[in-house]
Amino acid sequence: MPAKGVVAVTADVVIAGGGVIGTAIAWRAARAGLRVTVVDPDQGDAASLVAAGMLAPVSEALFGEGALLRVNLLAVARFGSFAAELEEATGHQVGLRREGTLAVAYDPGDYAALVRLTAFRRSAGLDAEELDSRACRKLESFLTPDVHGGVLFAGDWSVDNRRYAAALRAAAGLAGARVVRDRVTGVLTSGDRVRGVRLADGGDIGADRVVVAAGCWTSAITGVPAPVRAALRPVKGQLLRLRHPDGMPPVITHTIRATVRGTDVYLVPRADGEVVVGATQEERGPDRTVTAGAVHDLLRDAMSVLPVTSELELAETCAGLRPGTPDNGPIVGPVEGGSGPDGLLLATGHYRNGILMSPATADAIVARLTGRPPAAEWDPFAPGRFGGPGRFGGEAAS
Amino acid sequence: MPAKGVVAVTADVVIAGGGVIGTAIAWRAARAGLRVTVVDPDQGDAASLVAAGMLAPVSEALFGEGALLRVNLLAVARFGSFAAELEEATGHQVGLRREGTLAVAYDPGDYAALVRLTAFRRSAGLDAEELDSRACRKLESFLTPDVHGGVLFAGDWSVDNRRYAAALRAAAGLAGARVVRDRVTGVLTSGDRVRGVRLADGGDIGADRVVVAAGCWTSAITGVPAPVRAALRPVKGQLLRLRHPDGMPPVITHTIRATVRGTDVYLVPRADGEVVVGATQEERGPDRTVTAGAVHDLLRDAMSVLPVTSELELAETCAGLRPGTPDNGPIVGPVEGGSGPDGLLLATGHYRNGILMSPATADAIVARLTGRPPAAEWDPFAPGRFGGPGRFGGEAAS
Repeated sequence: MPAKGVVAVTADVVIAGGGVIGTAIAWRAARAGLRVTVVDPDQGDAASLVAAGMLAPVSEALFGEGALLRVNLLAVARFGSFAAELEEATGHQVGLRREGTLAVAYDPGDYAALVRLTAFRRSAGLDAEELDSRACRKLESFLTPDVHGGVLFAGDWSVDNRRYAAALRAAAGLAGARVVRDRVTGVLTSGDRVRGVRLADGGDIGADRVVVAAGCWTSAITGVPAPVRAALRPVKGQLLRLRHPDGMPPVITHTIRATVRGTDVYLVPRADGEVVVGATQEERGPDRTVTAGAVHDLLRDAMSVLPVTSELELAETCAGLRPGTPDNGPIVGPVEGGSGPDGLLLATGHYRNGILMSPATADAIVARLTGRPPAAEWDPFAPGRFGGPGRFGGEAAS
Repeated sequence: MPAKGVVAVTADVVIAGGGVIGTAIAWRAARAGLRVTVVDPDQGDAASLVAAGMLAPVSEALFGEGALLRVNLLAVARFGSFAAELEEATGHQVGLRREGTLAVAYDPGDYAALVRLTAFRRSAGLDAEELDSRACRKLESFLTPDVHGGVLFAGDWSVDNRRYAAALRAAAGLAGARVVRDRVTGVLTSGDRVRGVRLADGGDIGADRVVVAAGCWTSAITGVPAPVRAALRPVKGQLLRLRHPDGMPPVITHTIRATVRGTDVYLVPRADGEVVVGATQEERGPDRTVTAGAVHDLLRDAMSVLPVTSELELAETCAGLRPGTPDNGPIVGPVEGGSGPDGLLLATGHYRNGILMSPATADAIVARLTGRPPAAEWDPFAPGRFGGPGRFGGEAAS
């Protein structure tokens, strides 16, 4: 008989959060034969749908973040086959592009910083070709001649994050995963084991395993270890979606990452004529306001390197919340005994790398759910690294 | 028996166009006892809903445009009582503000231009108080200290154009005017008289009098005299609607018109926390695309004089089409014998002054419809001034 307040077990795994991380896990877990329920009040829009979809493992890792670089490289190596399987399973196109990234530097100081980044990327074994201003414009003819120089990172890819998210939802559904439109407010426990989740509407879902993939909302879920909840913070990102007017040919074919007097801006082209311009990094708590200043600064920097941007339609402005952590690394794996209940796994804190890491994260979590070891690259990113055991504050199921 | 293809007369007056001009006429004509039908496919959104609502008669008239200035002064003198009656008739608030306009000049060249405008406004008998930079900031504390100087035009008003348009629609409806959601494609005639209008869906509406108040779409209506159709052109205006974040007090209380290194920008505050920033003036045909370049330039200029603008939410971007004419003046009155059919009146070409002129235009057109003479200020703005008779190209009703 189930404990009081907990409904009969209805799933093998409940996943809190329906962004690309939670949905990728749902698809792979359902495909592995588990009965999966995803709980999300929206469609995981806090970060997944606001992203630009760059798959650039190294430029997102800073000097000294070797462990993060290794897991990013694992992630990018996995992305192609994962995306191919996803497209085959659903018939959706996810808009994977392999033209590479052209990094450009506006002034000599920007160029010096780019040269340092290039050395770092080469040390990771990645291709990088240094180009003078003229060679940059041979690749992208609308770049301003004022650009000091650039580097072509031919191995970088990008994906249309919204198409990708939609394909993941379709794949998860086809594989049998169920979606509940609600918010998980707590992990239910009985003794030292997970027994399910509590929903905002007051109902419960019973399950022996719970995966929390709720991005920065993970902090609001009781039962997640207190050190993890304290480690996560929202990092606001604002970005723009531009469109070509009817009849205008594409103004760029590569992802362009520009440093303009020390400020970074990127422009990511899509096959359907969209150009995504991003992104701010703001420590403003859960605020998702689109501000006049951010829109201005993004447009100013984009127009500095690609003046024709001024002729594109401003189709959409949006803001999302990246789940940041103190070491910029994700939080992926089981909560180990003592710091939380058995059966609780976390997959959050992906910060700027959620789209890129979603296939590899799904592999790691599904390995745990099916009794296999995940890749060793994940070892440094266990939930326990922020201290423990700590009070995990779960609600007793009985 | 009605002529073939024309339905029985269903209105005394058909008005083509449901923007503020057409709707103001509809209200006043219905109130005068006429049976009125307004035809518009949307809600007159080509210009009326994209406006900022400044009621500033002189700063919109250029040197040498004395006749336009006189009709603008007539219009502003009429606006207060018209708005009061409109609010009383409907219970709507239209957001009339009487704080005045603070014109500010960013650099000495901008200030010299402002001083010339001020002399012009004083010659028209309007109040103008010159202020140094410090005095400007006493009135508007968030202005940058870099502002060179300014002038307070205390007699300027503003109105919330969307509330005003909604109130007009309500008033017209309460007075018995009927609205048909369709587009007038032609004025129907029989001999030398108007017999009604043809609609895009193929139907007709019969009427002895037709008022064309279709802004720049007037050019697409057969039966309007060819010289008038050729005189009208769309002048694109892009503007932004900003909002204060929760808890932020209003950053401005006056309308601010700034000249920033020769470029004009205005910021119009609303009682509900909105700040409208406008507007571009673009000769691009009927294009209504919101472009990255225009949004950037408006934000840059607004932030140059009022840096706190960067903290406001960018709530909306929009583009409208002002109906421009070769002499910048409106086209208001009957089409006189020879250049068009009897019973056809025009009320279009209001360019940047449509909101301001709508009450006075309604007075002038309703005077004609009820057999009274309009104010003499309208004499220079008759439809015949662009030449005639010309082929008016109307469709014979039979």
